Amino acid sequence: MNKTLAEILTIGDEILYGQITDTNSQWMSQELDELGIRVVRKTTVGDNEEDILTAFAEAETRAGLVLITGGLGPTNDDLTMPMLAKYFDSEIIKNQAVEDHVREFFESRGREFTEMNKRQALVPKMATVLHNALGTAPGTWYERAGKVFVSMPGVPHEMKYLMKEEVLPKVREFFHTPVIYHRLIKTVGIGESFLADKIKEWEDKLPAHIKLAYLPSIGHVKLRLTATGDDRKKLASEVQELIDQALPIMGKYVYGYGNTTLEEAIGQMLLERGQTIALAESCTGGYVQHKLTSIAGSSAYFQGGVVPYHNDFKMDLIGVKTETLEAHGAVSEETVREMAEGVRKKFKADIGAATSGIAGPGGGSEEKPVGTVWIAYADGEQTIAKKLQLTQNRKLNIELSQISVLNLVRKSLRS
Amino acid sequence: MNKTLAEILTIGDEILYGQITDTNSQWMSQELDELGIRVVRKTTVGDNEEDILTAFAEAETRAGLVLITGGLGPTNDDLTMPMLAKYFDSEIIKNQAVEDHVREFFESRGREFTEMNKRQALVPKMATVLHNALGTAPGTWYERAGKVFVSMPGVPHEMKYLMKEEVLPKVREFFHTPVIYHRLIKTVGIGESFLADKIKEWEDKLPAHIKLAYLPSIGHVKLRLTATGDDRKKLASEVQELIDQALPIMGKYVYGYGNTTLEEAIGQMLLERGQTIALAESCTGGYVQHKLTSIAGSSAYFQGGVVPYHNDFKMDLIGVKTETLEAHGAVSEETVREMAEGVRKKFKADIGAATSGIAGPGGGSEEKPVGTVWIAYADGEQTIAKKLQLTQNRKLNIELSQISVLNLVRKSLRS
Repeated sequence: MNKTLAEILTIGDEILYGQITDTNSQWMSQELDELGIRVVRKTTVGDNEEDILTAFAEAETRAGLVLITGGLGPTNDDLTMPMLAKYFDSEIIKNQAVEDHVREFFESRGREFTEMNKRQALVPKMATVLHNALGTAPGTWYERAGKVFVSMPGVPHEMKYLMKEEVLPKVREFFHTPVIYHRLIKTVGIGESFLADKIKEWEDKLPAHIKLAYLPSIGHVKLRLTATGDDRKKLASEVQELIDQALPIMGKYVYGYGNTTLEEAIGQMLLERGQTIALAESCTGGYVQHKLTSIAGSSAYFQGGVVPYHNDFKMDLIGVKTETLEAHGAVSEETVREMAEGVRKKFKADIGAATSGIAGPGGGSEEKPVGTVWIAYADGEQTIAKKLQLTQNRKLNIELSQISVLNLVRKSLRS
Repeated sequence: MNKTLAEILTIGDEILYGQITDTNSQWMSQELDELGIRVVRKTTVGDNEEDILTAFAEAETRAGLVLITGGLGPTNDDLTMPMLAKYFDSEIIKNQAVEDHVREFFESRGREFTEMNKRQALVPKMATVLHNALGTAPGTWYERAGKVFVSMPGVPHEMKYLMKEEVLPKVREFFHTPVIYHRLIKTVGIGESFLADKIKEWEDKLPAHIKLAYLPSIGHVKLRLTATGDDRKKLASEVQELIDQALPIMGKYVYGYGNTTLEEAIGQMLLERGQTIALAESCTGGYVQHKLTSIAGSSAYFQGGVVPYHNDFKMDLIGVKTETLEAHGAVSEETVREMAEGVRKKFKADIGAATSGIAGPGGGSEEKPVGTVWIAYADGEQTIAKKLQLTQNRKLNIELSQISVLNLVRKSLRS
């Protein structure tokens, strides 16, 4: 099977001059990768006729599929559409469907439909127009000698919509790409190499048409299984069977699949159990509560919490004993246990969780250096505390503590 | 003055396949832009000999300066160094200074210095070696026929170090770039077009060698003044004079300069005044406290706070009156005022601040639709409350509420 090669071409001075971050091309690469299409080059050029035409010609020599974003606004420095017309030697015509859509788009928002807006409906005659329901600049599709050019707006959500709804299905059909089925398994609490070690035997036995990739990020490792074949349903069930085989070995690190986040997974577990949670955060300063409350519907299980940054409030608000603080200090097993138990009671929650640590850069001592963090979980029956020895970096320590305490909650709920 | 043109060339399969986000090239563009050097193209190719050599040749036809990142590891799929040797027809030799540095780098970290690591010291003979104090892959600099190629590692902090310490000073000298002086002015609480309107007269009178750019982001607008000339000190004082002229018009929106964040600016104001702060967050769920405590040294002025997600705790913890909640509801001016006043007292702080709102997507009503948010500031002498009517998007509402309440604190401290 001959692999289709692609080039991603981004047009716009604002990318060249570093005024905006290009996140589009990474997303497009991933989507193409999932179809088994290999990106061989990414190119960015400015709003300049000659540079755009040269980039078109170069891309056509290298790739069977050229995906172009940007340069589609209605103003004079937006050159993509006229350059495509020139490159494919096709006259520019008005597309009535696009004009109607653009008029409707402006009028339904109570904005005036101007002569300038009308220009968005001017497209090369040879192009197949791809409907952009989320914006005014249409996508366009060009075929010549077995090769395909596609032009899309650079606005990320419009580009993604066009890719998913229009471009990828057409690409699949045109290039007869094999069926590719992906599954993401999300793990926490284990490093990449340790995880690889644990599942080595399972990984070694994966069939040739199913590949495994490790995608690590701070505190997390994602596993991606990619199956290639011609029957999606069959691939899905093969992948599920493989996951079922691996779960007895790595299940305790798995918190979800696909785009699920750790805080969503915990929210889901709490909802299913009909339980509530409260937080007492010292070194994480409210970050764990922020994560939990970012999820829509979290008020069903999140009762509230405190950030007792100073010791007085650890005693006053959630009943940590003066003797405990005096004997062991704020960053100690004893204190963090009382914090978790105390916040649970105070907020009448089923579960209490707590963090106390030295995020740095100041505040460390020989006995308790920067990066020393205690986390705890309490549910009325048991209290579990855990010590972390993290880094010298304040922001990283806050991030890792947040993930660790949520993971402690997850593991405790699970067992 | 002939403008120097540059190309940024990124080498690595992991970028092509979308496994990592390329943030390097945006940063490099900005740095070059500050020197008055224009990037005319960005290119990414994979770990493939032919593609790399072609990209070198193409870049040389277009640009006087070619900045290359990536492909410098010691393994066999790292091809940048051998391809540069081939392209410039220069034999590869061992650079003793690099080998000594790499040995020291590993040994001082208690790691073994292997044969593989030694390869990092192999560089083309014609290259000027640029010392990478933060890593093991050196930078290299090539001159031929008035053009310059520079190779750097792709690890962002190593690349940035090499750019700042080695590459940019050499580029400045080689291309005789003019002196460019930049100043960033950070504003909050006013939209881009309103700000532009306010300072129009001042902007119209800017001298030709000083340019103004508007850089908007969520809730904030940065203004960048760029002065071009030959005397840095003179430019700096001209820019300062212009800022001083603008401050009477826009001063109340300005919270800082350069990289200062809003939470840092507030921390600095509190430190200077010897004052402390406490937070009661409902709809922001701990996010404001997280922002404040991300700053090193914040324990000097942040006392702590609460997230009374459920109404019971608004009464119980910070003394919001039952009658107030019953008469006006949680999302109301009366409640948010009592929250700010109550948390101030509870945490013995000089300043209390509070948020209460409907972040969405659920919980809205006709009277109080999703996006209705109340924020408040209290300092014992006065309490100020403000209503915000935000969006349908939960995350955006949380972000905007956080910025707005911090800005309310900033403005109140300022007056």
